[in-house]
Amino acid sequence: MSEGAVPAEPLLLGTGPSPLADSVRERLAAPAPSPMDPAFTTVMDETQALLRDAFATRARATLPVTGSSGAGMETVIANFVDPGDRVVCGVAGPLGERLAAAMVRAGADVIRVEAPWGRAIALEELVEAVGKQCDVLAVVHGEHATGVCQPLDGLGEACREQEALFVVDCGLTLGGQPLRVDEQLVDAAVSVTHACLGAPPGLAPITAGDRALRKLERRVRPGRSWYFDLIGILAQWTDGGPGRTLHHTPPVQLILALHEALRLVHDEWLPTRWERHRRAHAALRDAVAVVGLERLAPDGEELRPVLAVRVPDGTDEQAVRRRLRTVHGIEIAPGPGPLAGRVWIFSVMGLTAAREPQERLVAALATELGHDPADALAALAEGWRA
Amino acid sequence: MSEGAVPAEPLLLGTGPSPLADSVRERLAAPAPSPMDPAFTTVMDETQALLRDAFATRARATLPVTGSSGAGMETVIANFVDPGDRVVCGVAGPLGERLAAAMVRAGADVIRVEAPWGRAIALEELVEAVGKQCDVLAVVHGEHATGVCQPLDGLGEACREQEALFVVDCGLTLGGQPLRVDEQLVDAAVSVTHACLGAPPGLAPITAGDRALRKLERRVRPGRSWYFDLIGILAQWTDGGPGRTLHHTPPVQLILALHEALRLVHDEWLPTRWERHRRAHAALRDAVAVVGLERLAPDGEELRPVLAVRVPDGTDEQAVRRRLRTVHGIEIAPGPGPLAGRVWIFSVMGLTAAREPQERLVAALATELGHDPADALAALAEGWRA
Repeated sequence: MSEGAVPAEPLLLGTGPSPLADSVRERLAAPAPSPMDPAFTTVMDETQALLRDAFATRARATLPVTGSSGAGMETVIANFVDPGDRVVCGVAGPLGERLAAAMVRAGADVIRVEAPWGRAIALEELVEAVGKQCDVLAVVHGEHATGVCQPLDGLGEACREQEALFVVDCGLTLGGQPLRVDEQLVDAAVSVTHACLGAPPGLAPITAGDRALRKLERRVRPGRSWYFDLIGILAQWTDGGPGRTLHHTPPVQLILALHEALRLVHDEWLPTRWERHRRAHAALRDAVAVVGLERLAPDGEELRPVLAVRVPDGTDEQAVRRRLRTVHGIEIAPGPGPLAGRVWIFSVMGLTAAREPQERLVAALATELGHDPADALAALAEGWRA
Repeated sequence: MSEGAVPAEPLLLGTGPSPLADSVRERLAAPAPSPMDPAFTTVMDETQALLRDAFATRARATLPVTGSSGAGMETVIANFVDPGDRVVCGVAGPLGERLAAAMVRAGADVIRVEAPWGRAIALEELVEAVGKQCDVLAVVHGEHATGVCQPLDGLGEACREQEALFVVDCGLTLGGQPLRVDEQLVDAAVSVTHACLGAPPGLAPITAGDRALRKLERRVRPGRSWYFDLIGILAQWTDGGPGRTLHHTPPVQLILALHEALRLVHDEWLPTRWERHRRAHAALRDAVAVVGLERLAPDGEELRPVLAVRVPDGTDEQAVRRRLRTVHGIEIAPGPGPLAGRVWIFSVMGLTAAREPQERLVAALATELGHDPADALAALAEGWRA
């Protein structure tokens, strides 16, 4: 881990925001230049280039939208989804539900393709739905609540055959689990800064390729949203072009912090970072299995950046979580909605995909669940040696 | 001025973002709690209470929307403006143009009431337009580009008669020039954090009263926007109620910084702060008059938090602005759009509504425009004594 120390308190091991590296926090507090200062527009250009690396894309329209989680998908919907579009939505958790709800609000004709919470959606069902006429396929790459990663194989190809756009929400996976936007024929991807990228929340990175932009250019009437209008936003992020205009005041401090966080991602190198998250996930899974916590996701469907486990029968879920927070200074996440009381979610994102915070978590869990911490810590150590 | 020192470099005297007090910057860099941590939800509740003070309202629905400039108006439009609504828009500058454009995008039937850039809109014209059937009246309180403040007298009453909503964009005035939302019968007001409040950009404070919320409740179909859905956002900001749910990941660092900035506003006391901005504006106006810079706004229409002046004939506008930046370390703003090359805009917002930064600006302007700095500085000193 090259990113500096995890702050001692609180240890955030829920579903985000992730802890920040010291150098990222320092950028937040530094005196900020004016948005039109060349020193800042250079940072904007570099941020775009670094984001392209993270998405593994060459798409020009790659930038952080000013907003938090959901703002990226809202931008995609506002610009690439027309009222009446047939939109196939993969739904297997709360992020899929949010996606489908946002599409319905926008006036899309939504076809839901579902899987039980805790499983990935069958690829053949998604391909079949796309084949029956489709303008947009939208799927969630990583569901934080269930810890499941949705395979994407063949979906880009199926969309090309139907002249549909392929949209992926990679909020939980960007910088933590393999995704190559251009190779996987993703037309638009949306994410967040506060998960695996290790930047503060408040920005929503997006990338949109030529097929998506052509749909926007063909539009007869302007989109309903001024704030999320990509034409206006792109005029602000013009890669140093002469025509840069201010669509809105950029959140200067957040962009400076994201720039530094992306530089750390770049320095570690994306494949190394993906592998670190894989190792960290596997080690934590093995360690918590020793104290009786079983992963929801089956092998091959696991989302590396989070570990969602079943709460053992007879456990006072809230009491354990409260003691983790008050006694051990560790924040974990409860399952949302129908998973409340039945699931715990542990972060394996960015700085927390590392041995030291996992040792704290594993020791605390063992203590609170009545196991010998030594056994679980031995399993963790073994996992990190593997 | 109780807010700490202006950072030495760069001195931001354009139209924002404003410099931050040291204590605000420290909050940005401190380790942040989890969004559901009681320590953070207390900060959320206090932020709402402090924002109500700043808006001079008791409205429950007062909170910072996650987004930058324009996000507040987009929230108002998404929730309180229905397609086909007759919306009277006051337009006398770029913010008014943006407002009208956003309303048109949302499907409103927009009736523009205009004034030449550099003047306020005649109140009787606005009242007359509202009287001819109107669902929403939307005006900009302060146009930064022209330095004009729009009087609001009687507009709230006119809206009540028509059962129309009265919407005010007070981005430039909140915390800097008198506005009392409840007394002035404003149904919804939207602002920014990075002007007179002295917080970083990335949040957009809004307040909405009962008449606006009733219109939302009467809606038959949900609004088009998931991200700006006020029902979802209010569920996150429930004033400590038991049912708090996470609509989206809050920008924790920005909220902590806004909380501190609002505490400073509260400590200074709003009427004192308004008076400080009045004095600072008048002193700077008198001082720059000595070096031949005349204010655009006539007396009685001035926007205290900015001073927009005519560039003297024969001045190389860009060269002076560049030398201010490179030689003197001072950033001022050029006029946007049709005002380019003809107008300079000086910040009188928050920390910059103070004598020390004004001395730096006035001395630099005098030097660059070929005047004796001593005369202008004497006028500035005289203005601050008044």
